[in-house]
Amino acid sequence: MKNVQVILWGLGAMGGGIGKMLAKKKGVDIVGGIDIGDKIGKNLYDVVPGIEQGDRPDVIVGTPEDVIKPGAADIVVVCTNSFTKDVYEKLVFVMERGINVITSAEEMAYPQAQEPELAKKLDECAKKNGVTVLGTGINPGLIMDLLVILWTAACEDVNHITSRRVNSLSPFGPAVMEEQGIGISVEDFNKRKAEGTMAGHVGFAESVGMMCEALGWKLDEFGQDMEPIVTDVDRKSPYGFAPAGSVAGVAMKGWGIIDGERKIDMDHPQQIEPEQVGVHTGDYVILDSVPPVNMANNPEIEGGIGTMAMIMNCIPHVINANPGLKTMIDIPVPHAIMGDFRDQIDEEKKLVK
Amino acid sequence: MKNVQVILWGLGAMGGGIGKMLAKKKGVDIVGGIDIGDKIGKNLYDVVPGIEQGDRPDVIVGTPEDVIKPGAADIVVVCTNSFTKDVYEKLVFVMERGINVITSAEEMAYPQAQEPELAKKLDECAKKNGVTVLGTGINPGLIMDLLVILWTAACEDVNHITSRRVNSLSPFGPAVMEEQGIGISVEDFNKRKAEGTMAGHVGFAESVGMMCEALGWKLDEFGQDMEPIVTDVDRKSPYGFAPAGSVAGVAMKGWGIIDGERKIDMDHPQQIEPEQVGVHTGDYVILDSVPPVNMANNPEIEGGIGTMAMIMNCIPHVINANPGLKTMIDIPVPHAIMGDFRDQIDEEKKLVK
Repeated sequence: MKNVQVILWGLGAMGGGIGKMLAKKKGVDIVGGIDIGDKIGKNLYDVVPGIEQGDRPDVIVGTPEDVIKPGAADIVVVCTNSFTKDVYEKLVFVMERGINVITSAEEMAYPQAQEPELAKKLDECAKKNGVTVLGTGINPGLIMDLLVILWTAACEDVNHITSRRVNSLSPFGPAVMEEQGIGISVEDFNKRKAEGTMAGHVGFAESVGMMCEALGWKLDEFGQDMEPIVTDVDRKSPYGFAPAGSVAGVAMKGWGIIDGERKIDMDHPQQIEPEQVGVHTGDYVILDSVPPVNMANNPEIEGGIGTMAMIMNCIPHVINANPGLKTMIDIPVPHAIMGDFRDQIDEEKKLVK
Repeated sequence: MKNVQVILWGLGAMGGGIGKMLAKKKGVDIVGGIDIGDKIGKNLYDVVPGIEQGDRPDVIVGTPEDVIKPGAADIVVVCTNSFTKDVYEKLVFVMERGINVITSAEEMAYPQAQEPELAKKLDECAKKNGVTVLGTGINPGLIMDLLVILWTAACEDVNHITSRRVNSLSPFGPAVMEEQGIGISVEDFNKRKAEGTMAGHVGFAESVGMMCEALGWKLDEFGQDMEPIVTDVDRKSPYGFAPAGSVAGVAMKGWGIIDGERKIDMDHPQQIEPEQVGVHTGDYVILDSVPPVNMANNPEIEGGIGTMAMIMNCIPHVINANPGLKTMIDIPVPHAIMGDFRDQIDEEKKLVK
């Protein structure tokens, strides 16, 4: 079998990071790269920091029209946007050329939640072209939804779900500090929240929707809110500073009402230097269920590498799937790939024979 | 769509318990029961303790020949044996009548590990008859294997896996106390171990095999061993007593050698009254990986209900699957079913239309 052939659309931190991981794996080749501006025309191995070219041929970064042609690859990895409406045209572009597509766009982890019309059109487009489209990442896509779903498999009954991820923003750079309002006043936080310019977490609607579909719960109402995490002490991270009394992070909360009861609670506080105030970071699945579940992963699994790994590791599942829009509950359980990528591929489903 | 139609083969603690759970769910009917001896000819709702008949018609327990006929059900649940070789003929009997089958037999969670010839024949039989066969449970099937596999999905690299389940035998009855040698001397333990009459845990070979297949690791060598857990203090559980100096449980260990390195360690100590000596029960997934994972579920998820729930919850996935022998890494992620069973079923794959 020929190596699995991958095109990377978007060579920023996420897409480039996935490329760096793929370059260390067996049985898989990066056969194309797409980006904008002055990256076009350059060698992908020069554009992506830290990627190892070895004795591989150059891959010249181009436009979608240059790179994505029928038969050019088994799959395209699209890491360019967070929202379904922004990535939709790109996904259609790939599928109309008969190629499978996977994306890091958070809303695409369950586009049925906020973009049901586009989800339907994506499913139709995928089926018409005999290919598969999937969105995934660590959250949404794994920690606050798929992992919870898996734990319920041992349960006869589930009464209430608490899905919690307590993480540190300290490793992130200046852009995230600005987006998350690190160091601003509560007044400014509330102003930005009212204006809709506080970033917060994208994915609660998707995680809640995915869990409800899996369990067969009819979601009556979804809600979410954010509150400032105000610090009592000065906190300093490599790229952020929050003086005492200012905002050191954002506490995101989400919930799902099912049969008139609040059966799902999503809890995701993100802040710089949580350890300074005795907050232990971690991932938590707490089920009021028969039997009960009380899971903790401490510290939280790292989001950056985790998302890139999730996308890389789902590549074979997307190639192997039957045509259509898939979510993480439709495909087999994802996992690390320590051997040859080709050993994970169903020969009949491979596009580049 | 007609309700999902289930036949229960084996009405003991496991099969009967699954029946009790199914009787509380929507969109699913128990349409047949099979057992031996004086249960035959009786109403299933009288034979299974605690099951609610409600206004359902009687289900008369019969022989396999009486009950399993083409078109009689969508799936048969076989809970009669632990070993593949003992359950093999029953699985073939079901499949030759064109019906899907799921079993609690521990070795069937990954029969490729210890019975590769039978696994091959089961796969052929399933495909020939257009049906699916799956073995599952909480362990093997979820806690010490599938859950580990899911965590690796967020990893770029996995160097070493520790899969640990520390549980209490206190809830179990006299048969388990006897099987596990509770209260016997170390000398007797070693004698029984040498004779091969110590029960221990069935499933390490299966869990290790499943993890290796998922990750693409070639397993060079699998090993396992058991040691007595000798108590320093008298320990008393409802059905067991281990005086100081005697055996209060069994510590099962297993391992997998991959590329010359011990990359998988399975650790499963089972004992009565662990709390008396400060042992905290729980399920643990510890990955030396990029990024690392350090998961604990405390206390351990209950094995009895957990196994029954896993089997019940996998019924739709087995019906929906393409024909063949499947394991937990081939089907979508399992989960609790809180709504109507029919909402989980692919209409094209339903046998009883």
